[in-house]
Amino acid sequence: MERPRHQGMAKNTYMRWRLPLVCLLWEVAMIVLFGVFVRFGPEADAHWEEEKREMNLTSDIENDFYFRYPSFQDVHVMIFVGFGFLMMFLKRYGFGAVGFNFLLAAFGIQWALLMQGWFHSFKNGKILIGVENLINADFCVGSVCIAFGAILGKTSPIQLLVMTLFQVTLFAVNEYILLNLLHVKDAGGSMTIHTFGAYFGLTVTRILYRPNLEQSKDKQGSVYHSDLFAMIGTLYLWMYWPSFNSAISEHGDAQHRAAINTYCSLAACVLTTMAFSSMLQKKGKLDMVHIQNATLAGGVAVGTSAEMMLTPYGSLIVGFICGIVSTVGYVYLTPFLESRLHIQDTCGIHNLHAMPGLIGGIVGAITAAAATEDVYGKEGFIKAFDFTGVYQTRTPSVQGGFQAAGIMVSLLIAFAGGALVGAILKLPIWGDPAAENCFEDDVYKQVPEDEESDAYHMHNPDKPASP
Amino acid sequence: MERPRHQGMAKNTYMRWRLPLVCLLWEVAMIVLFGVFVRFGPEADAHWEEEKREMNLTSDIENDFYFRYPSFQDVHVMIFVGFGFLMMFLKRYGFGAVGFNFLLAAFGIQWALLMQGWFHSFKNGKILIGVENLINADFCVGSVCIAFGAILGKTSPIQLLVMTLFQVTLFAVNEYILLNLLHVKDAGGSMTIHTFGAYFGLTVTRILYRPNLEQSKDKQGSVYHSDLFAMIGTLYLWMYWPSFNSAISEHGDAQHRAAINTYCSLAACVLTTMAFSSMLQKKGKLDMVHIQNATLAGGVAVGTSAEMMLTPYGSLIVGFICGIVSTVGYVYLTPFLESRLHIQDTCGIHNLHAMPGLIGGIVGAITAAAATEDVYGKEGFIKAFDFTGVYQTRTPSVQGGFQAAGIMVSLLIAFAGGALVGAILKLPIWGDPAAENCFEDDVYKQVPEDEESDAYHMHNPDKPASP
Amino acid sequence: MERPRHQGMAKNTYMRWRLPLVCLLWEVAMIVLFGVFVRFGPEADAHWEEEKREMNLTSDIENDFYFRYPSFQDVHVMIFVGFGFLMMFLKRYGFGAVGFNFLLAAFGIQWALLMQGWFHSFKNGKILIGVENLINADFCVGSVCIAFGAILGKTSPIQLLVMTLFQVTLFAVNEYILLNLLHVKDAGGSMTIHTFGAYFGLTVTRILYRPNLEQSKDKQGSVYHSDLFAMIGTLYLWMYWPSFNSAISEHGDAQHRAAINTYCSLAACVLTTMAFSSMLQKKGKLDMVHIQNATLAGGVAVGTSAEMMLTPYGSLIVGFICGIVSTVGYVYLTPFLESRLHIQDTCGIHNLHAMPGLIGGIVGAITAAAATEDVYGKEGFIKAFDFTGVYQTRTPSVQGGFQAAGIMVSLLIAFAGGALVGAILKLPIWGDPAAENCFEDDVYKQVPEDEESDAYHMHNPDKPASP
Repeated sequence: MERPRHQGMAKNTYMRWRLPLVCLLWEVAMIVLFGVFVRFGPEADAHWEEEKREMNLTSDIENDFYFRYPSFQDVHVMIFVGFGFLMMFLKRYGFGAVGFNFLLAAFGIQWALLMQGWFHSFKNGKILIGVENLINADFCVGSVCIAFGAILGKTSPIQLLVMTLFQVTLFAVNEYILLNLLHVKDAGGSMTIHTFGAYFGLTVTRILYRPNLEQSKDKQGSVYHSDLFAMIGTLYLWMYWPSFNSAISEHGDAQHRAAINTYCSLAACVLTTMAFSSMLQKKGKLDMVHIQNATLAGGVAVGTSAEMMLTPYGSLIVGFICGIVSTVGYVYLTPFLESRLHIQDTCGIHNLHAMPGLIGGIVGAITAAAATEDVYGKEGFIKAFDFTGVYQTRTPSVQGGFQAAGIMVSLLIAFAGGALVGAILKLPIWGDPAAENCFEDDVYKQVPEDEESDAYHMHNPDKPASP
Repeated sequence: MERPRHQGMAKNTYMRWRLPLVCLLWEVAMIVLFGVFVRFGPEADAHWEEEKREMNLTSDIENDFYFRYPSFQDVHVMIFVGFGFLMMFLKRYGFGAVGFNFLLAAFGIQWALLMQGWFHSFKNGKILIGVENLINADFCVGSVCIAFGAILGKTSPIQLLVMTLFQVTLFAVNEYILLNLLHVKDAGGSMTIHTFGAYFGLTVTRILYRPNLEQSKDKQGSVYHSDLFAMIGTLYLWMYWPSFNSAISEHGDAQHRAAINTYCSLAACVLTTMAFSSMLQKKGKLDMVHIQNATLAGGVAVGTSAEMMLTPYGSLIVGFICGIVSTVGYVYLTPFLESRLHIQDTCGIHNLHAMPGLIGGIVGAITAAAATEDVYGKEGFIKAFDFTGVYQTRTPSVQGGFQAAGIMVSLLIAFAGGALVGAILKLPIWGDPAAENCFEDDVYKQVPEDEESDAYHMHNPDKPASP
Repeated sequence: MERPRHQGMAKNTYMRWRLPLVCLLWEVAMIVLFGVFVRFGPEADAHWEEEKREMNLTSDIENDFYFRYPSFQDVHVMIFVGFGFLMMFLKRYGFGAVGFNFLLAAFGIQWALLMQGWFHSFKNGKILIGVENLINADFCVGSVCIAFGAILGKTSPIQLLVMTLFQVTLFAVNEYILLNLLHVKDAGGSMTIHTFGAYFGLTVTRILYRPNLEQSKDKQGSVYHSDLFAMIGTLYLWMYWPSFNSAISEHGDAQHRAAINTYCSLAACVLTTMAFSSMLQKKGKLDMVHIQNATLAGGVAVGTSAEMMLTPYGSLIVGFICGIVSTVGYVYLTPFLESRLHIQDTCGIHNLHAMPGLIGGIVGAITAAAATEDVYGKEGFIKAFDFTGVYQTRTPSVQGGFQAAGIMVSLLIAFAGGALVGAILKLPIWGDPAAENCFEDDVYKQVPEDEESDAYHMHNPDKPASP
């Protein structure tokens, strides 16, 4: 046992000075860095009239804003409502799920604009931002929301902010290696967002292993209403996933294709999830956890290949497989990971993001390797894989190899980074809750007095245990 | 009495093999059929660069994706969140409403892509799909969601999948007759979606009449929170209905006009719904059922005419009338239909979809018949009604006649199809719930243990009644 | 004390004839006025084909519909779901919040189309409407939703409809003075929507002061689930605010820039809200009221300046400050306003809309005054401030002065209008609830029987107190 039994009594979850300090310090840092580095990109700058003339554009509709803003808003909803509500299933942690997700994402997008900006939009000493940067920042934070799913209910808001700082940094580095050095395609982020985010989070939760977590076992379940709230998250993720996978694809056919492939994959995934959910439960009943999560695996798994010529039936096959893999994971793998490998994965991100993310990377590698000029057309082939400049002579099979290398790099950085960040979060200065206070809103949030309030005040360390 | 009193005890709702079998078989069939038939349309295919040159398009923004994708996503939200949450009002059937809606819609859109594809997008042996096909598939499934509203809580998931298979097929046939053979306009689907879907569903529920349904009378009501969840569905349907009615209209003014007409009709509908809801209740209080449903009738009733020159005040008049008709229907017609005609209509789709759908068809016929070149302009007139080719000489009054014929055809196919499908669903092999288990999530879903759990386990046939 | 103690017993909240009468009369008036005045604008009219030719447009994508419709739908969601759900936090007033918001907004948008149409879209005796008018109507109603927040739970639906009628009228007058006479920029409505709406509402609630409101003190709080519903409202407002502030900006760079500035401001605001919420609570816990509301202040405060060259770091600074001001307001100012100034502000709109709105007006004035041709470019400068025609010679500092004058005018009309409307609403004919029935759904709505039902029927004046 790593910690003494009654550790909880001694834990200090008092946030009054620490949380404000971290929030304010970091926000001041953001302002300073934005002041030094961040400016409007040409399409958002008031000089756009001159820019238009130079670029020979005849209409304002050619502004990237009109190509991408609707998809951006869908992605935005996925990050804040999708992830926030999906994690609301815990009976006493609704505020924590949606509130802390809100906090870490709001911080993360600012830091991501900087980190990704330095790598991708840096010109003459300035980061020039536009709607595509906003989408990429949301994507980056998406990987943090995924990792949050593994440690949900067991960490303090300060730990989350610290993790966000490091994870966004590592995300940007990994993304740079994949997209720029390996010249890999990953528009929907099977590798950069899902594989990286999930294995990072799983490593962190392994390091933060709590042997006494069964003390709050009763709070790890859902109640009727918390499950219905979670369905809001599920549905918004499911519906808007075609926008997620197509948001930063090339204008025109690539965006169009990515949306169609994702739509097909997700539809197939629902059917196999329901089938296996019923088959694996001895009374044949459907399990809400599977419906809330495994139905989304199809979107994760076409993240890399959606903008390629995967074809609608190819997408159905991927969705078909992932619904099965993910559901089986919830039934057999999650308990195994917890009991044998000491990986306590609150939301089961291993089943929704890690495995489908890996599958997505592999499907992407295969689809790239199988590409031919016949299928894509001469120009389409070059445009789809950006085989220009130094990459002019790269062949599909070589591209497939690099795609596979991208998976490996993502895994490597996830494990190494997760171990490092886990070790930092283990320091006893961040105010994490005691084992018996996990999965409880009351520790960090003022909870209204209601019919559930009795349970809330039992183990609150801020109050004397007896009057 | 059609069934023995204690039928419930003998009913077998065990889904463990049947549901997985149906889901997997059908998904495999989808994959095979997609593999044989479905390919990307020219605007989603990697050959788009060449296509653009041939069609003389100067910019990627001319891709249909940018004309229709935002509307597609709004329609998508209406189908999955709108219908799913609207049906969540039952106190113990929240999972069933949103979960089964999810299942049938995910299956239905795949089958609809095929059925509608064979009729409308079939070229050289392949179905070529793009964003418009996705919208049409969602529309088609919308009619199934409507029919689901009539039988909500009284059927097994397998019955729903069987119904979806047949209803999508019949929808595509009916749509083909209307749009292609009769050359009728129905962009928002007053006839093809609402009239067809509702009368189909009402016929099915009539055939499936359950004389002992009062045994689960206590579960047919709502509770405070289930009503608030249902309001999410109502509002998303109400807000996005302008997108629904404009999603597949002609580019430009027609889409623009359809959105404005729908916006106006819906606004007027809210006022008369509130007025009659208060007037018809003896204490003058507002009834949530009316607010949840009748406020939407205005959107249904301009489904055919929204893209025509109905004008904003014409739309207000239609909305005004439909709010009244629908609210009066909930108060007087629904009880009458149940007690006299044995039509048990759980969600009152007769008031929200059937009557307003008919009104919509009639309004469309009148608006078409009243069209003049003066109002539309010479080119606009031809474009609005597609009076080209063999239809070059069709006059507005003839068009009005064909529109009216479209209503009749839709009704006919709905009644005949509903009777057939109802008879099939009556076969005792689909695992439908006993009368006393209707409107209960616990029959097919694993429900979390909570304060409501006692009530859930009372009549569960899977368990022995006494220990 | 202004009213006798046991007033409640005598109050007549019977709506059966009054509410229907008002709804029907007003809707009939709308139909008549729409019939006389409202027609489709050129881009929604079937003559658009000819219009396109005249305007030399080569593609349907140039229709304003495609520039603004996605933003319109986001704004629409903010008005109906955003405001409706945000006000759902009260434990027993969920229906009232979302239902009355629905009613007043549905009426308000119709009246706003007329009022704003007469001022801004009137040509040859007709109001010509298009998607921009729909957005402006939604904006106008937004200011009514804000005022509704101050009197939430204390008024009858008839009072709300009367207030909407007057407030929309005054809004249109104020907007005309600002935009047309003073030639002020206010695309996101810091002045016209937030400052005007909030001070109007605060004046009304001051006039309607209820000394006995502590009788319903227990119902003024939230419960666990009502707070989670309110978070839906918060998140949709927060996510879609970039669309709100950019919806009616000039095509191209201005819309793009407005979205980016708002995104940045909102992100910073979340961090400082969390910081001060924790800092000002003696146990250091986060208060849900702050997270639900103060996180949005950053969007309000860049309403005027978002489309200007505020720059991303300027936006962060504004968001930083407003999160603090708003949170401090909830902790210290709201109790002070209620106890000393007798301003009973149910939702705390003073903190979310009034103060941030003023800040937004000031930031806008400063940003305008600081504008240079260097920063904007020669053409961009003229386009951004519309310095054409009679305004050709206006300098930035003069513009700044006019912007400041706009704040003053908005305040003046808000106070005077609020006092007038408050006096009208005080007339004893509108059926407002007694003090002990405030914040209760049961007064005007049929509430389902459930576990909370006992509390609902206690003080219902329609029933005899004893059997």
